[in-house]
Amino acid sequence: MIDLVLLGSGNVATHLYRAFSASEEIRVKQVYNHAEESLKDFKAETAVTTSLSELMKADIYLLALKDDVIPDVAQKLSHLNGLVAHTSGSVTLNALEACKRVGVFYPLQTFSRNKELEYSQIPFCLEANNTSDLEMLKKIAKNISGKAYEINSEQRKKLHLSAVFVCNFVNHLYSIGEDICKENDIPFEILQPLIKETAEKVKDSSPSEVQTGPAIRRDQSTIDAHLKLLSSSENKEIYQLITTAIQSFHGKKL
Amino acid sequence: MIDLVLLGSGNVATHLYRAFSASEEIRVKQVYNHAEESLKDFKAETAVTTSLSELMKADIYLLALKDDVIPDVAQKLSHLNGLVAHTSGSVTLNALEACKRVGVFYPLQTFSRNKELEYSQIPFCLEANNTSDLEMLKKIAKNISGKAYEINSEQRKKLHLSAVFVCNFVNHLYSIGEDICKENDIPFEILQPLIKETAEKVKDSSPSEVQTGPAIRRDQSTIDAHLKLLSSSENKEIYQLITTAIQSFHGKKL
Repeated sequence: MIDLVLLGSGNVATHLYRAFSASEEIRVKQVYNHAEESLKDFKAETAVTTSLSELMKADIYLLALKDDVIPDVAQKLSHLNGLVAHTSGSVTLNALEACKRVGVFYPLQTFSRNKELEYSQIPFCLEANNTSDLEMLKKIAKNISGKAYEINSEQRKKLHLSAVFVCNFVNHLYSIGEDICKENDIPFEILQPLIKETAEKVKDSSPSEVQTGPAIRRDQSTIDAHLKLLSSSENKEIYQLITTAIQSFHGKKL
Repeated sequence: MIDLVLLGSGNVATHLYRAFSASEEIRVKQVYNHAEESLKDFKAETAVTTSLSELMKADIYLLALKDDVIPDVAQKLSHLNGLVAHTSGSVTLNALEACKRVGVFYPLQTFSRNKELEYSQIPFCLEANNTSDLEMLKKIAKNISGKAYEINSEQRKKLHLSAVFVCNFVNHLYSIGEDICKENDIPFEILQPLIKETAEKVKDSSPSEVQTGPAIRRDQSTIDAHLKLLSSSENKEIYQLITTAIQSFHGKKL
């Protein structure tokens, strides 16, 4: 049994808490948050505290906190003997250097508070300074996910950057699609199968090999017609820039 | 039984041919292409021709051809009594005006020659000049898909434009993500669950309501760090532009 203290109560903390609670080998002994009201959902199930000096003894202290408070909180945990690990995509391992034993436990997924996730599908990116700490992180990850990757701090930053492109930016393109539909009385659901298939295609194929559309076909008359149809100057700019990017990306490869 | 003549032998034609062949109520009597060699896969299964003057009698002539040849081919089909319909997202119904009875049968999906598709998931966007022709198109669509939408030429153009954003442009963002992974020895498969979840999220929620990431959080230090990490000036420009677009899109709504 691994004893765990969870610091934080946002989306990531809440999802991880649920996953840990369902696991036989992980016990969440305590949840910390600086604000008492954020702890009310956890109170009925486990110990809670608003004070860093009252953390219980545990094998691991998991910091599911905002990036910018991680170094400060770590400073206050320097006395602990357990492993101190954060869950951030962009914060380095060094940010925890005040602590005795340090690690990273970064779940690469997009978390919405009210949407259930399949934990078995979440890759955990792990980092630690020694083998035994890494093994503990792996054990925790495998207990709730089955997918664990060793990723160092430099790689993790790049991975987080990639995630912005394939998740956050992709979602904004979905928003643009939805807006165009709304303006023209078209139900957005018509686009759902296409969105799904586009995402599924890159499971077995490299996205660079399955690029389709007017840009890669260099179908200038469709491109011109589309630019004319776009009412928002921002969307026009995005259309133009990504079209050029597709053409130069695939031009290079020829 | 609906008798159908298929014109074209590209990705869309090939996928539709397979779907029609599996249906009990549609018979593909003949496949046309101007180039003999493109017909070799169909020859063993049905009649083929390279001459528009040798088309058989049918209920519907389906033009799964490149956009720019559709009006020319339609000119040569003006003598036919059957319904002449094209499968294009960007060509208007009027492009077929030389013909007696005209329609549009546009499958909104991304077709790759070697990937099997679930036809039941493809929405067909239908248009015709009269109710009985529209009913025939609906019958064909429902036979192979189950999803049929009445969409006029103006809406179809906008829908095609939306599709470029949510499919072609999204796929390019996947390519950028893959490139960043490659450069840093990270397996692209780590991003797969995130790609899948991002696409699935918008099935039940409006994409504008589930936007996450540094842009919408206005987390300028992460944005600056990401811009520094990007080696390609084109990707930097895309990062900057979509970040600004997310902020102005969500700023408006506040």
